[in-house]
Amino acid sequence: MELLVVKDKRIDYDGSAIRSHWAYRNFGILGNSIVVFRGKCDVKVEEMIDIEDVRAQKEIKSDDMIHYIIEVFDFPNVLLASALQKLFIAKICELLSEYGVKTKRKGDDIYIKDKKLSISIATVSPVSIKIHIGINVEAKGIPKDVNAIGLREIGIDDIEAFMEKIGKALQEEFNKVKKDSLKVRWAE
Amino acid sequence: MELLVVKDKRIDYDGSAIRSHWAYRNFGILGNSIVVFRGKCDVKVEEMIDIEDVRAQKEIKSDDMIHYIIEVFDFPNVLLASALQKLFIAKICELLSEYGVKTKRKGDDIYIKDKKLSISIATVSPVSIKIHIGINVEAKGIPKDVNAIGLREIGIDDIEAFMEKIGKALQEEFNKVKKDSLKVRWAE
Amino acid sequence: MELLVVKDKRIDYDGSAIRSHWAYRNFGILGNSIVVFRGKCDVKVEEMIDIEDVRAQKEIKSDDMIHYIIEVFDFPNVLLASALQKLFIAKICELLSEYGVKTKRKGDDIYIKDKKLSISIATVSPVSIKIHIGINVEAKGIPKDVNAIGLREIGIDDIEAFMEKIGKALQEEFNKVKKDSLKVRWAE
Amino acid sequence: MELLVVKDKRIDYDGSAIRSHWAYRNFGILGNSIVVFRGKCDVKVEEMIDIEDVRAQKEIKSDDMIHYIIEVFDFPNVLLASALQKLFIAKICELLSEYGVKTKRKGDDIYIKDKKLSISIATVSPVSIKIHIGINVEAKGIPKDVNAIGLREIGIDDIEAFMEKIGKALQEEFNKVKKDSLKVRWAE
Amino acid sequence: MELLVVKDKRIDYDGSAIRSHWAYRNFGILGNSIVVFRGKCDVKVEEMIDIEDVRAQKEIKSDDMIHYIIEVFDFPNVLLASALQKLFIAKICELLSEYGVKTKRKGDDIYIKDKKLSISIATVSPVSIKIHIGINVEAKGIPKDVNAIGLREIGIDDIEAFMEKIGKALQEEFNKVKKDSLKVRWAE
Amino acid sequence: MELLVVKDKRIDYDGSAIRSHWAYRNFGILGNSIVVFRGKCDVKVEEMIDIEDVRAQKEIKSDDMIHYIIEVFDFPNVLLASALQKLFIAKICELLSEYGVKTKRKGDDIYIKDKKLSISIATVSPVSIKIHIGINVEAKGIPKDVNAIGLREIGIDDIEAFMEKIGKALQEEFNKVKKDSLKVRWAE
Repeated sequence: MELLVVKDKRIDYDGSAIRSHWAYRNFGILGNSIVVFRGKCDVKVEEMIDIEDVRAQKEIKSDDMIHYIIEVFDFPNVLLASALQKLFIAKICELLSEYGVKTKRKGDDIYIKDKKLSISIATVSPVSIKIHIGINVEAKGIPKDVNAIGLREIGIDDIEAFMEKIGKALQEEFNKVKKDSLKVRWAE
Repeated sequence: MELLVVKDKRIDYDGSAIRSHWAYRNFGILGNSIVVFRGKCDVKVEEMIDIEDVRAQKEIKSDDMIHYIIEVFDFPNVLLASALQKLFIAKICELLSEYGVKTKRKGDDIYIKDKKLSISIATVSPVSIKIHIGINVEAKGIPKDVNAIGLREIGIDDIEAFMEKIGKALQEEFNKVKKDSLKVRWAE
Repeated sequence: MELLVVKDKRIDYDGSAIRSHWAYRNFGILGNSIVVFRGKCDVKVEEMIDIEDVRAQKEIKSDDMIHYIIEVFDFPNVLLASALQKLFIAKICELLSEYGVKTKRKGDDIYIKDKKLSISIATVSPVSIKIHIGINVEAKGIPKDVNAIGLREIGIDDIEAFMEKIGKALQEEFNKVKKDSLKVRWAE
Repeated sequence: MELLVVKDKRIDYDGSAIRSHWAYRNFGILGNSIVVFRGKCDVKVEEMIDIEDVRAQKEIKSDDMIHYIIEVFDFPNVLLASALQKLFIAKICELLSEYGVKTKRKGDDIYIKDKKLSISIATVSPVSIKIHIGINVEAKGIPKDVNAIGLREIGIDDIEAFMEKIGKALQEEFNKVKKDSLKVRWAE
Repeated sequence: MELLVVKDKRIDYDGSAIRSHWAYRNFGILGNSIVVFRGKCDVKVEEMIDIEDVRAQKEIKSDDMIHYIIEVFDFPNVLLASALQKLFIAKICELLSEYGVKTKRKGDDIYIKDKKLSISIATVSPVSIKIHIGINVEAKGIPKDVNAIGLREIGIDDIEAFMEKIGKALQEEFNKVKKDSLKVRWAE
Repeated sequence: MELLVVKDKRIDYDGSAIRSHWAYRNFGILGNSIVVFRGKCDVKVEEMIDIEDVRAQKEIKSDDMIHYIIEVFDFPNVLLASALQKLFIAKICELLSEYGVKTKRKGDDIYIKDKKLSISIATVSPVSIKIHIGINVEAKGIPKDVNAIGLREIGIDDIEAFMEKIGKALQEEFNKVKKDSLKVRWAE
């Protein structure tokens, strides 16, 4: 799995990055990838993946987020998409713990003292698994009914370092998942 | 996913429970399942799944463990097996944190201050995913080259309650993974 | 598999209900489902699934039908879609036999004395199997080249009871198919 | 799907014909196939596929049966195996109806006035779907707890003609299932 | 696999033939197929499949080509699509060798003395594998940066005979691939 | 895909190397791999994969061969196994052509003036694709009914260099197949 941390510019997330081959189209990265970038979040209704959100007419917005766009081509299966997503979220919580931040994971959501730090979605395209994880840098521009928190409010100020650290950790986690899948014999 | 916590007897784990339909053959549980039991662990070489262990001629032993045998029939894919396994291990670490126990997860291993609490394997049969997670109750009867720790040494004495609590948490985690996989539209 | 029989309103079928997650989008039903409703049928060309119909420029119309929209997420495979569809049609014929109505099944079509009672299509979306079965309540508004018959003409007047009875039967049939698939060991 | 009706000799069914490539190994038939033969039935415990039967220590026996061994290589999936099996059983019931015999299908079992006419199993090998359907010629040599019936008792005496007629019907049914799966566009 | 060689008319290739069921929609050919035709090539950007070409803003053009459109429904997997494509290209090179033409295959490209004879793409739709192979009849109307060659320049003038010969060879190659896949037992 | 050319010792091929994870068990190579070695060939009947050979009671023997054992974990599908095998054989023929050796490929067999140079089999394990290609170094110890030829008889004497050259070429071919599968968008 290749990792790209975009540091030289901001990219806003409108939901279109969830489409297949986004990393290859935009950055020439072939195969499994994590692309990390920073920018606003404002997901257009027609790009919303979570039908629960569409049904509830939720807004998905934040003024400043770091975004992880993950694509896995091994097998485009929604259960694998959903399992990998939860594992990545759990990994992020483990890393936040190393920063001394106590979190509560509920499925694919990260809470800090009942305040929501992140958003996430996992689905498939006809050829790949796609996962988006967005983490608030600051809790600004977020829909009013969401009690949100951002990285700055928990004392994480070196956003670029955090972007990269998390990116590397998710990359390593996936590589471990993959490696372990290859060293086991099948059971009867 | 159905959960069975076996409380009325001890069952030793020799590796054969990793075969497909073990829960149905032995307990009549049809479909996705978690069976939790307590007993010795002594995996016969011919039942070992991790070829790395076979190559290293490792012994897999413990005098007293709680065992989780998980079977998922949705799709027998090794990457999904490996991802679910890591997620379940991460969930166990999250629960141990609620007990006030600080853990370090390395892939599918749980460490407490560099001591190994658990063993785990994930693979596929031709019809299902099979995962075994074993957690030491006490660090006894464990191969000498392993620096191990058990639940009692971290102050968890109500083993039956722990067996059930973890079992329920893994069941809920899987059900969340499954549910979320069904509520997302596919991406282009 | 969840069953919903819509009794409080009529819903016309224009073909768009064949899209994935229609039941979740419209009724909040997650996962495998059968939704039964009553309404006109007039499938727009751009929604037609059967390319044979498109090639033949067939009209698919009826003034009053009961409709079954089935979605199965287990594995989006066209052969499974087609096999399940035929099985459901066979089941409907078995139930009509209990009403004393003699039918002739030809693949996915139900005939009563050479008159066509039903229409049906089965396909996949990228994440699910989708099946539509439409049964004429009355043989009205049907293309002139089709020799059609409706439920009223074979003496079935309690349409709501019939909608529900068939719905339950298809639900049970699927559950049996699923259950049996889980209790067999694999063969060498 | 190729059809072979073995008329020149009797073949007893001990369960081993459920293994993959049995038709190719024994008759040189490549690919999807139905092989029909006549002989005793006495399934050895180690060949039993239905774990429910193994758990109940059932005997699977009959002195004279016609046997259908079906293999489908398209996709080795247990749900497809189970759906095809039920469809084939439904088809047999439809044909018996043409003989004037009223049947009751319960999943994969055929009953005539509460007497059991048939046995059946469906599963997968790592490369194929395998289905066995056995129909009593006479209700002899059957375990005492089974209330059985045979073809002769319902007035079907030309066993060879019946073997072939059913064989052809199942072949046609499968070919229809397959053909229909190829002529539909995918749905969004 | 069915083969159709269109001889009575020219068909231009604009990329839309890469969509699923194109052969069935246009020629009524059900299932796996090769359709061979002759015509211009001018692939619209929105129909381009190779994202590398899109990124490089390549033009895909030729005034006179023979085109092979192959569709395989067995399993819509990109790796299988790509492997079959390379095999078909290798087969074409083997046939050109029989014409006394020495070729150099680079993946899915055919070169004759460093001049490019062909273009090709392989991908999946949600229900099938789709492959396009285009071979220049004459090196005319081709983007200037491509050093191209055509069949006429290597002494192949009976274009219709060549279209058919290659078509039959690819059909036989696929049938051999398929047949061999059915006659092997699975390995442990 | 990792390549290992075993040069320091001879390894005889008895068919057991066709089992899954053979490269990992014996050489610690994880994931997709090609292992090349030299040794006798004498495939035991119980290890034979080609049921056609078993049915014909063929002997598979040679006193001196170079062997390629390929394992691909991406998707354990027999059609992909068979397609990759033919592609690898075609690639070997292309390389022999560079040595000035004219070959005739028939599916997975390589002929030189009607003499057989090679043997090959492709199948799946429950977790991988496995391919064996054996090339005679000398036409000795081969069953009498086979008109065989070896590398020495076509002037290839540096066997180690040849082993490596072919190995690298197959590795590159697979990597190209894989890479191309990742850079194409899906078609409608």
